[in-house]
Amino acid sequence: MRLSRFYLPVLKETPAEATIISHQLMLRAGMIRQQGAGIYAWLPLGFRVLKKIEQVVREEQDRAGAVELLMPTIQQADLWRESGRYDAYGKEMLRITDRHDREMLFGPTNEEMITEIFRAGVRSYKDLPKLLYHIQWKFRDEIRPRFGVMRGREFLMKDTYSFDIDKDEARRSYNRMFIAYLRTFARLGLKSIPMRADTGPIGGDLSHEFIVLADTGESEVFCDRDLLDMPAPDINVDFEGDLQSLVDQRTVHYAATDEMHDVEEFEQKVSSEKRVSARGIEVGHIFNFGTKYSKAMNAVVMGPDGKEVAAEMGSYGIGVSRLIGALIEAFHDEQGCKWPVAVAPFHVGIINLKAGDEAVDGACTDLWRQLESQNVEVIYDDTRSRAGEKFARMDLIGVPYQITVGPRGLKEGIVELKLRIDGSKQELSPEAAVNFIKEKIAEGLKVH
Amino acid sequence: MRLSRFYLPVLKETPAEATIISHQLMLRAGMIRQQGAGIYAWLPLGFRVLKKIEQVVREEQDRAGAVELLMPTIQQADLWRESGRYDAYGKEMLRITDRHDREMLFGPTNEEMITEIFRAGVRSYKDLPKLLYHIQWKFRDEIRPRFGVMRGREFLMKDTYSFDIDKDEARRSYNRMFIAYLRTFARLGLKSIPMRADTGPIGGDLSHEFIVLADTGESEVFCDRDLLDMPAPDINVDFEGDLQSLVDQRTVHYAATDEMHDVEEFEQKVSSEKRVSARGIEVGHIFNFGTKYSKAMNAVVMGPDGKEVAAEMGSYGIGVSRLIGALIEAFHDEQGCKWPVAVAPFHVGIINLKAGDEAVDGACTDLWRQLESQNVEVIYDDTRSRAGEKFARMDLIGVPYQITVGPRGLKEGIVELKLRIDGSKQELSPEAAVNFIKEKIAEGLKVH
Repeated sequence: MRLSRFYLPVLKETPAEATIISHQLMLRAGMIRQQGAGIYAWLPLGFRVLKKIEQVVREEQDRAGAVELLMPTIQQADLWRESGRYDAYGKEMLRITDRHDREMLFGPTNEEMITEIFRAGVRSYKDLPKLLYHIQWKFRDEIRPRFGVMRGREFLMKDTYSFDIDKDEARRSYNRMFIAYLRTFARLGLKSIPMRADTGPIGGDLSHEFIVLADTGESEVFCDRDLLDMPAPDINVDFEGDLQSLVDQRTVHYAATDEMHDVEEFEQKVSSEKRVSARGIEVGHIFNFGTKYSKAMNAVVMGPDGKEVAAEMGSYGIGVSRLIGALIEAFHDEQGCKWPVAVAPFHVGIINLKAGDEAVDGACTDLWRQLESQNVEVIYDDTRSRAGEKFARMDLIGVPYQITVGPRGLKEGIVELKLRIDGSKQELSPEAAVNFIKEKIAEGLKVH
Repeated sequence: MRLSRFYLPVLKETPAEATIISHQLMLRAGMIRQQGAGIYAWLPLGFRVLKKIEQVVREEQDRAGAVELLMPTIQQADLWRESGRYDAYGKEMLRITDRHDREMLFGPTNEEMITEIFRAGVRSYKDLPKLLYHIQWKFRDEIRPRFGVMRGREFLMKDTYSFDIDKDEARRSYNRMFIAYLRTFARLGLKSIPMRADTGPIGGDLSHEFIVLADTGESEVFCDRDLLDMPAPDINVDFEGDLQSLVDQRTVHYAATDEMHDVEEFEQKVSSEKRVSARGIEVGHIFNFGTKYSKAMNAVVMGPDGKEVAAEMGSYGIGVSRLIGALIEAFHDEQGCKWPVAVAPFHVGIINLKAGDEAVDGACTDLWRQLESQNVEVIYDDTRSRAGEKFARMDLIGVPYQITVGPRGLKEGIVELKLRIDGSKQELSPEAAVNFIKEKIAEGLKVH
């Protein structure tokens, strides 16, 4: 992608309304533009990262056996009256009346609708389990939207719903998502810690929040340090098998958000040198809520004994658009974003130090073509900006590998390769740069 | 994908509310489920087709040089007051009031928002041209939604916006989209005809609708038969070059929707044996509307002469969710859908005639694994349904290649391969079936 064709409105100043670093950097790097309180347009740079996060989330859902569909954003009020939540939900629900005075709403979540879809098509225990998910924009009319995409009103959520014949099977579905979530966040480069959580208005008796530690996190969290050192299950994990021991290995350790925190238990179970108390960002939340919705909405299936039973359900959310904020909180420095390869908007930036010079233009274009033919994603700064501006912009947007091409080096057959991760630089031939990068990108994209 | 894990609620009866074949088949094949007037949930089968259409649309936009971003569904009323369309738009705009009594709306289109984004970041003619697009759900509160996804209220649209320094450059952007649209529909297997069109409330003086002929089309259309025989420009078309002659080759022929139809001109320009009068489905619409929005909203750039000029703009829409209806209208028979490989929800269906039989199960699983390892997308009917039901279901959902595996054939090392396109069947070894299919799928997915 030529930068001159791209749309990258970077800002020199930090907008005053942004109080946390991820919000500041998303605005400064031209990733988002506010279109109302808690409502953002995803500019091309931010959109690319969002899509990559979405794709990682999707792949791990598919791997865990969930099936994707897509529910509409607008829902009928009557559907929510069936569960009793239409009146209960309060002002966070964006209520809408259409031209025929029908009561509708912009979906804040989809338990009701998925239950309606399930009951319309599933009759027998033989069709279970069912794990269905979608990745769709939701709206919650937060009274005080803040922190950019971290607590927006219109936000992208992946929500999965499970339907099972009994509690044991429901637990298996729950475990699938538990493990899928650990893998998802790990692939994004984030260490997530599952914590006992309050089930809140969704209801149910089994629930975990997945928390990424960050100083700017909204919640105070407490856990055993051993959890921080535990790697996520690797690609060989068998989602058809029994995942209970993998889950138990984690849940045996103390980990709780402040709502669920029990000081006495914490001090009893965790030796003082292992006690972590920190701030965290909630990036996922999973619930098993039994038959709360299936009973209210008559979502029943025929059991093996010929009797109808209400399906055991769970729901499982990941804040896809919020994750981009969490990632920046985790990966940045004074100069800007530092994207891991797996979610970088571009893998490589090419900086042309003398746009208009035939030799330099030619060398840059060659590099660009060579890299793109290897499926490496390139942003090529072909503009006439000053060199300093080009360097600063490439660092701000956080491209992991940056190749600078200038007339002087080129005479000696040399370009400069900079690694955003540590700022290290090396001079090498264009071919050597391409080979080095190819390997690094392949490594960064490998799924473990 | 195992059918037992998938969610495919096929219907035996045709729902009474569906009057056209695409709507009937989408409901019967379990592709969509209505969630309100003109509002549909995309069930897993329909979702897969929708995603593939979206991806083809995206690839051709990218090829033509457009840059993707994503604007939110909810917009501020004040933005639309700037262009004067807030009051003018009428009841098709879904108006919303939030908890703080702010006036908002669910975007029916995005001229205003993209103009706001453009003016915030582009200052100079040097940054032009800009071609920006997004693929996002829109809402138009149609008084009488009908024909399923063909005229829904919540629908998926790809909309591109172009910004240029003058009319000549704007024409180049227009031509890019003109050619990209021909390629997009051709890749989907559809013959589209660009027709002179009324510009309607968007305004402007240059506009074409892209029409696919279908008996159930909403518009009456008139054109020269030569247009039907003209292939779309192939993959070697140079979007950076001059596309005018490619556009002229088409626009020189008479083609108009009924709103723009001129009987006298038609009869004068087209010899009687070449006059086509038919019904058509509008799948795309492109507009050049000059400075209508840029002037109203002060989206100006510095020209080469140092003077500020309002950007010349155009907008270019494709009805992504509507296309799935157009595709079914074009590709179906008595038994159901007949998907072209490029958009088929699955490439191959495997029908197990004796689920539970070790040998048959094993052979099916082998076939499935072999095909999936070649990136062939498989739906494996591992259920205990009767054979006739399995055959009918596979035809209904329209899987292009169907392999039936039964105990008798298997003893002789033979499976049956059926082609959905013509119903032809052949018996062959599983290896031969895999090889045959691999080649056909590669051919079907090749971009010309």
